[in-house]
Amino acid sequence: MNKKIGNQTYELENKPVILSTASFVGKKEACGPFNKYFKHCCVDDKMGEKSFEKAERKFFEKALQLSLDRADLRPCDIDILVGGDILNQIVSTNYTARDFQIPLLGVYGACSTMTESLIIGSTFLSCDVGNRIACLTGSHFSAAERQYRNPLEFGNQRQTYSQWTATGAGSTILSSNPKDGCVRVSRFAIGKVTDYGVLDIANMGAAMAPAAFEVLKAFFSDTKTSPDDYDLIATGDLGKLGADILRDMAYKNGFKLGSNYMDCGHSLFNADQKTFQGASGAGCSAIVFSSYIYEKLKRGEIKNALLIATGALMSTTTNQQGDSIPCIAHLVMFEA
Amino acid sequence: MNKKIGNQTYELENKPVILSTASFVGKKEACGPFNKYFKHCCVDDKMGEKSFEKAERKFFEKALQLSLDRADLRPCDIDILVGGDILNQIVSTNYTARDFQIPLLGVYGACSTMTESLIIGSTFLSCDVGNRIACLTGSHFSAAERQYRNPLEFGNQRQTYSQWTATGAGSTILSSNPKDGCVRVSRFAIGKVTDYGVLDIANMGAAMAPAAFEVLKAFFSDTKTSPDDYDLIATGDLGKLGADILRDMAYKNGFKLGSNYMDCGHSLFNADQKTFQGASGAGCSAIVFSSYIYEKLKRGEIKNALLIATGALMSTTTNQQGDSIPCIAHLVMFEA
Repeated sequence: MNKKIGNQTYELENKPVILSTASFVGKKEACGPFNKYFKHCCVDDKMGEKSFEKAERKFFEKALQLSLDRADLRPCDIDILVGGDILNQIVSTNYTARDFQIPLLGVYGACSTMTESLIIGSTFLSCDVGNRIACLTGSHFSAAERQYRNPLEFGNQRQTYSQWTATGAGSTILSSNPKDGCVRVSRFAIGKVTDYGVLDIANMGAAMAPAAFEVLKAFFSDTKTSPDDYDLIATGDLGKLGADILRDMAYKNGFKLGSNYMDCGHSLFNADQKTFQGASGAGCSAIVFSSYIYEKLKRGEIKNALLIATGALMSTTTNQQGDSIPCIAHLVMFEA
Repeated sequence: MNKKIGNQTYELENKPVILSTASFVGKKEACGPFNKYFKHCCVDDKMGEKSFEKAERKFFEKALQLSLDRADLRPCDIDILVGGDILNQIVSTNYTARDFQIPLLGVYGACSTMTESLIIGSTFLSCDVGNRIACLTGSHFSAAERQYRNPLEFGNQRQTYSQWTATGAGSTILSSNPKDGCVRVSRFAIGKVTDYGVLDIANMGAAMAPAAFEVLKAFFSDTKTSPDDYDLIATGDLGKLGADILRDMAYKNGFKLGSNYMDCGHSLFNADQKTFQGASGAGCSAIVFSSYIYEKLKRGEIKNALLIATGALMSTTTNQQGDSIPCIAHLVMFEA
């Protein structure tokens, strides 16, 4: 059976494997440093739809369909779809699940959704609740911008410490059959909601860094390992500033994040793409994991990796009512 | 190990039990037919807070704390909190998890959240990912009204086919230790998103009834059982109209829902409480299950029960953009 290690970490006995992954990204994302890993991108970020919200759905459909195609599967071959997004009521996921007719477990963890979905999917497969589970999430810059901040037409000036919501969706299909793949989900840590009192919703990196720190600290303590034991440690969307804060917090607390540490958000865009601190959004860690990180594991370039997707759990209402930003981060460990 | 039965149903081998439950409800709910089952209610539905959103959080905290108290547990004795709510970004759950410092898996299934949480919690416990998991959800009439429809100050006239969002939260603590309780979670069915094209967001019963029908049909077919095999079949919040539609659909499709069928929403209020079709909201099935249904199972008045919480998965944005209402229902089977 599976077992709990320490306070927040779990080790799976029957380790699910990754059967296939796919990312479908926006044009700006495709022009960034991960260009050669993103095999599919949109021509028009409205995807021929009348609204950005309807367009976001198309990214989800494309990513899910691509991951099915790569594994030569039909939707009815998937037992459960676990996923969510950052639009109110996770509508992109709901409408995608409707069109694919796969039983749905919708989750909300803001930009931590990919790791939350992988944790739920892996646990279900570890005990034979389903044979194949698809984990799906994404985001769209223009839909997120008008829901959380201002409509694009408003033309507001961005703060230098702000981030840019990634446009794209990532899908990862897990299988309980060890023969289906060579990358396994072996351990995970479920995060606690961490709130250091940040009030500025433009400063997501500073708000989320403590959540990433807390779950990493718990994981290293639970497993008696250190950052050096991993070939890659990737946080979700802290951006440059948030990643620097995390490095600093880690260093002051006795574990040093070295050159094996990256942040998906910080790495998604080039400096000349004017996104300031880098990318954010549920799609950010999903598309980087479902392409770059998975490819590196699959090719054997790295033997293990930790993915720590981070999410800010406020709403515009709680922000307007003066509440600080509660954040969460879940950690998933992969082995090739 | 657990096993899949048919297309959508799963049977747990190590069946988790219910360790304790608690409901904390609004005054109106406490004055309804379940009066003697609701042991704790608020005096003021603003709970001394400045906003309805902040008040909703207090209901969550009260329900969770009561369920901990009844089991003589501290928050650190709970491995994982699985829950969600119907406010944007499930903020009531997020802030409650922050204050209790229990690792959180946030879910979004609208008013189906209670059964979704029970499915995730039960599966995790069935394979030793955690020993005790709390499932928590709720809703607040005034917070939901202004987020989904109109602010109360607007004083709009309600349609006769509309429902009234329940004010209250329900918490159910599951345990992997069979000695901890006499009510077990034995089977569940994960719902597919069902959309029969209803566009009117005031008519939730009509939108959600097909989702309840589809999952019931799948469950009866998968398990080769009929409604007569169960002492109680309870849908979440279809209301009177939705429940009538479900009865009708079931009858026309070969299974008859008899006097063992009830709808939590239809049963929560008396006719003179002017809620038209009855209650709705994530709190509706949560408070009825965590009091009335659990008590009946625990006392042995019924030997088994099916809970089918139903959720409408649209957002105000998708509704304004002309999309129809996608709905979902998850089914959980309990045995005493």
